[in-house]
Amino acid sequence: MNFSEAEIIEVVAEIFRSPDLRIELGIGDDAAVVASSGRTVITTDTAVEGTHFNASWSGAFDIGRKITAANLADIYAMGAVPSFLVVALTLTGDESLEWIGELAEGIVHEARSCGASIVGGDLTRGAIKVISITALGEVDIPIVRSGAQVGDSIYLSSLPGWSAAGMCVIDSEPTSDLALHAISEFCAPTVDYSVALDWAHKRATSMCDVSDALIIQAKQIADASQIQFNFDKSAFEKSSEFAQLKEVADSLDVDVWQWIIAGGEDHVFLATGKDLSGLCVGKVSTGIGVTGLEMKKAPVTWRHFQ
Amino acid sequence: MNFSEAEIIEVVAEIFRSPDLRIELGIGDDAAVVASSGRTVITTDTAVEGTHFNASWSGAFDIGRKITAANLADIYAMGAVPSFLVVALTLTGDESLEWIGELAEGIVHEARSCGASIVGGDLTRGAIKVISITALGEVDIPIVRSGAQVGDSIYLSSLPGWSAAGMCVIDSEPTSDLALHAISEFCAPTVDYSVALDWAHKRATSMCDVSDALIIQAKQIADASQIQFNFDKSAFEKSSEFAQLKEVADSLDVDVWQWIIAGGEDHVFLATGKDLSGLCVGKVSTGIGVTGLEMKKAPVTWRHFQ
Repeated sequence: MNFSEAEIIEVVAEIFRSPDLRIELGIGDDAAVVASSGRTVITTDTAVEGTHFNASWSGAFDIGRKITAANLADIYAMGAVPSFLVVALTLTGDESLEWIGELAEGIVHEARSCGASIVGGDLTRGAIKVISITALGEVDIPIVRSGAQVGDSIYLSSLPGWSAAGMCVIDSEPTSDLALHAISEFCAPTVDYSVALDWAHKRATSMCDVSDALIIQAKQIADASQIQFNFDKSAFEKSSEFAQLKEVADSLDVDVWQWIIAGGEDHVFLATGKDLSGLCVGKVSTGIGVTGLEMKKAPVTWRHFQ
Repeated sequence: MNFSEAEIIEVVAEIFRSPDLRIELGIGDDAAVVASSGRTVITTDTAVEGTHFNASWSGAFDIGRKITAANLADIYAMGAVPSFLVVALTLTGDESLEWIGELAEGIVHEARSCGASIVGGDLTRGAIKVISITALGEVDIPIVRSGAQVGDSIYLSSLPGWSAAGMCVIDSEPTSDLALHAISEFCAPTVDYSVALDWAHKRATSMCDVSDALIIQAKQIADASQIQFNFDKSAFEKSSEFAQLKEVADSLDVDVWQWIIAGGEDHVFLATGKDLSGLCVGKVSTGIGVTGLEMKKAPVTWRHFQ
């Protein structure tokens, strides 16, 4: 590496610079100072090289977008609006200044799409690349996992599974448009944050983003709310995307439900409530746990420790 | 590893649990929700295995304390009081549940000493251990680096250099009390946060914590304030700790000023103002840069990219 820590910070700080008037003091002091409302939402999410991304699969811009999206989706999943982010970068020293700049551009791109600004960060050196982001947001009434009510419908903002599909096909050098779309979603998902905002306005009773797997996240809401989630697979099949995802799955002789149910990292939003938009995929009833999400093969260890 | 991600989260979440009434929603949802004042201070700092710590040198409790102290010191250095932290842990999978618990205990110990609570986190797997913490704080009037005035005195909360000394002696299997003290400060520094609070009340004109090196941090304040820092080495020598640190340095044939001036990671506070407590080590004058911190050997590359 032919450049210093100070040069990296200069390049990244310039890319992160924001005209956001709520920032009283941005990058360059011991800490940032921002205006805040009466209730702050906080989340943190990390992307680790070799676990969550691989620089040979993904460009720096997409790596930056993906970890930023994971943080932003967590904020929206509380019914909140993201405001500020801080970014802790661990780099190996083998990166080019261009690669680092593209990573920062990807982070800023995703944050700006939600009106959020990067206000601080930290740069360290390590044997692998690690990107930890903490996102803050503002909310009036948070939408928590424990609010689902018997009689509610269950909604998804879109069909989950594209990221899992992308991970499956990426090594097979695919050429079809659908397979390339899956890879693109794996490298950096397209998250429809506006659906979460809309659901918050329409008083969704519970909400989360599907970052691990639909079946895990559904069980979390069901357990927290002490109700039962009853999914209807035929409702998923009505989604315009289902046939497309199934086409990719069939071409690899994979059960498409494996991706839909046990995938994750798409950051699709899952909520309960009445008359919400999106894909209505089931009903909430008395009972415990989750029904209707059976797979041909039991989903073991797909997320044992990530 | 004979335990799952869920078990780790359960153990760590239990250790992090806080009765803080400002926490409206703690660990367990997509994000935490906390009460916040009108002005929030944010900082993030990362400890990377092999760069900032080594599990064969330091116990998990100290590793947790050290990275937490780095974050808390940044909050206090703004004249603020820390409130909430989120902790992103990357573990290799080789750690025992006991080691992970001790790490969490170290984090909580340091945070509680400042009245701060851990409200969220993230757990990921990677080839090395990485701990990223983001700290929030509250402040009325932030004390920034650009406020130093001509005629101010320069203050240190205590003598810097013990952490650097500890790093030097740790491989020599020392037995003297002073050397063991240095190692203890290297593994987890004793930060006197109350001095920063006191200086904020006494309207210090500028402040930062010495996380990199005194000469770097002094130059940052001098440059930001467009003034000159004139240090007086004889004032350092009056510190009761100077003779002790010099005794350790002499035993290794090291220039003690190398540790004092180019060390770091003690998180000693550096400030300008009038009639502050602590060690008065110089004066602010017109001009640029820093004078009076000469060393026998030029401090090159001691912090090129960490």
